[in-house]
This record gives sequence, C-alpha cells and structure tokens, in this order.
Amino acid sequence: MSLEPVSAALARAGAVLTIDLGAIVANWISLKHRVPGAEVAAVVKADAYGLGAVPVAQALAAAGCKTFFVAHLDEGMQLRGALPQPRIFVLHGPNPGTEADFAAAGLIPVLNDVEQVRGWAALARASGLPHSAALQVDTGMTRLGLSRAEFDALVADSESLAALAPTLLMSHFACADDSSHPLTAMQIDNFTAFSRALPGIPASLSASSGIFLGAKAKFDLVRPGIVLYGGNPNDAPSNPMAPVLTCSARVVHVQDIDRPQTVGYGATYTVPGPGRLATVAIGYADGFLRGIGERPDGFPVFADANGVKARLVGRISMDLATYDISDTPKGSIVPGDTIDVIGKYASIDDLAKAAGTISYELLTRLGPRLHRIYRNGTVI
Amino acid sequence: MSLEPVSAALARAGAVLTIDLGAIVANWISLKHRVPGAEVAAVVKADAYGLGAVPVAQALAAAGCKTFFVAHLDEGMQLRGALPQPRIFVLHGPNPGTEADFAAAGLIPVLNDVEQVRGWAALARASGLPHSAALQVDTGMTRLGLSRAEFDALVADSESLAALAPTLLMSHFACADDSSHPLTAMQIDNFTAFSRALPGIPASLSASSGIFLGAKAKFDLVRPGIVLYGGNPNDAPSNPMAPVLTCSARVVHVQDIDRPQTVGYGATYTVPGPGRLATVAIGYADGFLRGIGERPDGFPVFADANGVKARLVGRISMDLATYDISDTPKGSIVPGDTIDVIGKYASIDDLAKAAGTISYELLTRLGPRLHRIYRNGTVI
Repeated sequence: MSLEPVSAALARAGAVLTIDLGAIVANWISLKHRVPGAEVAAVVKADAYGLGAVPVAQALAAAGCKTFFVAHLDEGMQLRGALPQPRIFVLHGPNPGTEADFAAAGLIPVLNDVEQVRGWAALARASGLPHSAALQVDTGMTRLGLSRAEFDALVADSESLAALAPTLLMSHFACADDSSHPLTAMQIDNFTAFSRALPGIPASLSASSGIFLGAKAKFDLVRPGIVLYGGNPNDAPSNPMAPVLTCSARVVHVQDIDRPQTVGYGATYTVPGPGRLATVAIGYADGFLRGIGERPDGFPVFADANGVKARLVGRISMDLATYDISDTPKGSIVPGDTIDVIGKYASIDDLAKAAGTISYELLTRLGPRLHRIYRNGTVI
Repeated sequence: MSLEPVSAALARAGAVLTIDLGAIVANWISLKHRVPGAEVAAVVKADAYGLGAVPVAQALAAAGCKTFFVAHLDEGMQLRGALPQPRIFVLHGPNPGTEADFAAAGLIPVLNDVEQVRGWAALARASGLPHSAALQVDTGMTRLGLSRAEFDALVADSESLAALAPTLLMSHFACADDSSHPLTAMQIDNFTAFSRALPGIPASLSASSGIFLGAKAKFDLVRPGIVLYGGNPNDAPSNPMAPVLTCSARVVHVQDIDRPQTVGYGATYTVPGPGRLATVAIGYADGFLRGIGERPDGFPVFADANGVKARLVGRISMDLATYDISDTPKGSIVPGDTIDVIGKYASIDDLAKAAGTISYELLTRLGPRLHRIYRNGTVI
C-alpha cells in the first residue's frame, strides 16, 4: 500500500470502482436461508472475480464463512497469508511437484485426474500421515474429474483412499442456469450415485446457479461465486441478488456538436445533432468490454450522468468511451467530473448482455487501472 | 520481485506467457524503415497492451526510441520511475488539480479539451515559465480534441499559446485500417489544415494502421502500438509484423472418451468419440476471451500440443479450456505438461477473430495470473 493520501491517488484516477463488501456479505447470508442445512462456502478464485480476494474473503470470514475456493495454488497461498483459519480448497489441484507447497500452506487440493490422485497419495504415504483432499468426479460436463470407472477403482483401493483422506466429493453442473436442460437432472442422478458409493463424505455439486435449482441439487455444501458479487444466477427477470459494484469514469472531454456526426472507431454510430458528448477515461483495457459498444441498436447502454440517463455512443476504445449527455444542463458536466458507467442505469448483467457475454467475464476482467474503493467492510 | 527461484514460481503457474522483447524491438525498427524522416515513438499505454510497460519501454529505449505514449498520469509516473530520459506523453491529459504532478514527473500532457488547456496554461503562468504540452485536435473521430473553432481561438491567443509551449500537434484516425474509407482522406486534409495554422510545431496523426497508409499520413511523428506487439495492422492476408507472444497452458486433466460426448458449459459442443481430451489451466479470467469458444464451427481454434494440432472444444470457462488431443500419441501428454494456446497454431489475430473482436482487446486483457517470461531483452 502506498503511503500517499487516498485523495491524491483518487485525483489522478481515470475511473473508480466502488465495491460494497456489505452487499457481498448480505448476498452470502441470503444464500444461507436458501439452503438450510447445507454449508455455504465462497468462491474467490480469479481475485474474487476481479473484486479483490483478500478483502472479500476477510469480510465473508468475519460474517462466518468457513470455506473458500480458489483455482490456483498461488491464489491459495495469497489467501492463506491473509486468513490463517478457514478451509481453502484449490480447484485446479497440484501441478506435479507442488504437492508439498499445498501441505505447507495448509491448502486442500481438489484432485481432478488420476495423476493428481497418485501424486497426493504419494505425499501422504511419504509423510506417514493422511492428507486431506477433495475428489472431483465427472458427472457429465466432460471438463474435470474422475470417470466413474476411475472413481470405482479408487474406492476399491482402501489404502490409497485412507492416504487421501477425502474431505469433500465434488462435481460441477454444465447447464445449471437452465433448469429444464436434460443434462441437469442426469448430473444430479449421477452425482447421487457417486456420493452413495463414498458414504460419510460431504458432497458438493452446486455453484451459483445450482443453488437456485432447489433441494435436490443442494447436497452438503454449495459453492456460490457470481451471486455473491451481484450477478443474476438464472437470467431471471428480477435479479434476487443485491448489486455490489459501481464504477465512475472521469470525463476527459466535453464537446458540443451542431449537426449529425459519426463517433469513434469505424464511424459506426451517428449521433443526431445538435447535442453534447462526454468522453470518459474507461475502455476495454479496463475490462469495459469492447463488445458493449458493438450492438448499439439492439442493446442500448446507458450511464448515470448526475442523475440523467446518458447513452453510450460509438465503439469503446482501449482507454475511452463516449456518452451522449445532451439531456444534462449545459455546463453541468465538465472535464474532471465523473459519470457512473456501472450502476443505477447499467448493471453488470446489462453490460454483459450488451457485449454478448456473461457477467462473470465482465467482472473477472475489470482491470488494474481502476482505482478500487471498499465500502461497508465492517458491517458484520 | 520475489526472491524465490523462478523455477518454483513456474512450477506453480497455470499458464506462462513468453514475451519476446527482441521481436518488439525488431518490429519497431521495421517501422522506422517504413516512415523515413519521421520519428517513430512507441505507445505503451495499458501496461504496453498487457505485456509490461516497463520492460517493453526499457527494451525500446535501449534500441533508440526517444518518445513514449501512455494514457493515464499513473502510467506516466510508473514509466518515469524506470526511464528518466525519454519524452513521455500522457494521452488523457491532466485531471483538474493534477497539473503539478505532471510537471514534477516531467510528463507532457496531451490537452484534449479547452478546460485542460486552461488548467495547463494557468500552471505555466503561475510558475512564470512555459510548460510543454501536446495539443489534440479533432479531425473527424469525434472522441477527443479541440474543434477547429476552439483551436483557432487558441492560436489567436498568443499569450496562452506561449505559456503552453506546444511541442506536438496531434489527432487520431477513426478508420485507418480501411484505407478506402472516405473519413480517412478527410481526416488527412483536416489535419493538414490544422498543422498549417500552427507552423513549426511537429505534427502526428498516424498510429499503427495509419503508418501503413503511406506518405500522406506520415507527418513528423508516428505512434505505433499494436504493430509493435505483433498485431496485423490492416487485416492483410500476410501479417508484416513479427509475432511477439506465446502462451503455454498447463494440463490439469486428460480423459479418454469412448463415445460422442458434449463438453463444457451449456453442452454446446459435441466431441466425436472415441478420442482424448486435455483440459488446461487458462480461461477468460486470464483474458483467453470467452468468445473464442463461442463460434467453434465458423472459427475453429487450435493449440500446439507437442507439435500436434489440437482443436479447442466447447466453451471457455473462467479458469479452464479444453482441447481435443486425439491426434497425439496416448500417454504423450499428461497432467503437468503444457500446450501452446497462443503460438504457431493460434496467432493473436486468429484468436481475436474467433472471439469477434480485435487483437488489441485480447492483449490488453491478458491477466495477472499468467506467469510472464521475457526473452531477448538485451538483443539491442
């Protein structure tokens, strides 16, 4: 952390991302009410989907969250440095030769492949002690995890199983956001069968969208990610989660136009004149996805300019985006002011949809130039 | 920098990005031959398009590059810390109140708005000395820069002009990648007229694509960005620039499939069985854009698996992607091995096209989890 006053860094910033840790905690608590009897963990991989793994996990741990998931060993080591107590699962499991790093940091690997199982069992045997691990099984996504035959062979090998000390049985839905997809019911059936073959071990199938599938997908532990951060789990008309983010971008240039004019790269968009435009200091290098500005007629995108709706016009540049502020009083917005490009008039789901992607991608690519401010970190 | 051996960090890494600084320098030198008589600067904003502003600028400065462009004040301050000598222009200009920070770090602002002009002139007057600045003028992109009327008023104000000490007159093409676009010729004409009204001041219109428009777009200084990093400037069938990047992703899981099987989120893609799949530790959180896996039939994407072409199958996840390695010998690729997901079989332009975007966006979103290795930093 820098020793300079926050105000100086803020004055230089092109755009500011405000992260409401209280809203993240409130989302986590609301999920606990949805899955009574199951443990609610938190997925904080990819730097908590771009929002900061350490502050997010600290806020959730203070609220009672006892289990976290990251993807990479390095992410686990970083989180362990900040949080000595909770369980931390590492979804990718150990690269060969890194097993001892997991043990040293007290991280629990998710074993996704028979080679990872062998490596972890070898570590346990060499130490003479069982070493806890999670077992990932493939129930139909065809991405990670033991096949049923590989799993059955392991279950039959009681010596290896004892060395591994499985502490969680896991799988992952391919289509949980579509409750009518036939694969969803099939994965639940498959996972139930896996789980019966390994009695007494807690089981976990559902991530964010799965939590909203109801009791049959609940099992013993759920692993929410995007819903903690305010994403809509199932593209429902009304998002059940509280918004977590606002992003304010600094105005670099205001211009009056007196006639219709093309704006930005490719001259793809014509603004009717007369009017007024503001160009702000955020672009696709900041994760304000280029696709957001690619389909302006089908998916108009708005910002909040002093309470006035301002429409995005033209393509998004690497470092800049332009909004039509014709409806604001002349002189009310000048260079140095900010407008909210994520917030009241543009949710993360609105922006992702405009870009033809999902809010997960928007969040994970929010870039390092955005100045981050955390709010309500001590609510709980 | 960490004090641990590089090999330990490498062993933990999920994916490794290798950046050939020698190729960046070679690209810069090749541009010098294209624009004899003009200065060739280097655009290193957005952390040199994700590749590392400091190592890239150090390599180019060692090769003779004397002028750099960044977007934000913080980027300029970081670069100045590493490079005391060269000129550093800051494209966004000063936020109000940050003018003194520019002067203290010896950074030259690009003034994009009359308010920025006023703020900078006020600093110069208060100090009693002229303070160099670049003037941005709008020639038709409608994004940043003084209008012709604002410019004429400034030129007529000799006291303000003397305080500003303009050292560069700038504008930016909207459609330079399309030499037949009518806006391109119009912007050249407009910029020529601006330049004649401010004689004796070096002028700069062309960025990467503009350099390939020929002598009429050359003026006194060119500002290449993406072409330094190996991007194809004009979507030409043969890319004139040398590739700069490879990205190797670690295999987490290998699975044999014995029948046709859907793969990944949404079960959007069916792999014909029998065959073999490898899931690797790179995903859209790393900037391996989700769109790359969205249009597999129109834009097949390949990786280099030990010299064998392996096709991307299914959607890209946040942290993972899956390739069909059926054409590799069984047992030749196991967890812990790597395959090249950017390289011989997938250029940055191939991947960007598959995702429906441009290589600029792919590069600027390459994420912090990618372990970066620099090669050939001392060639020049």
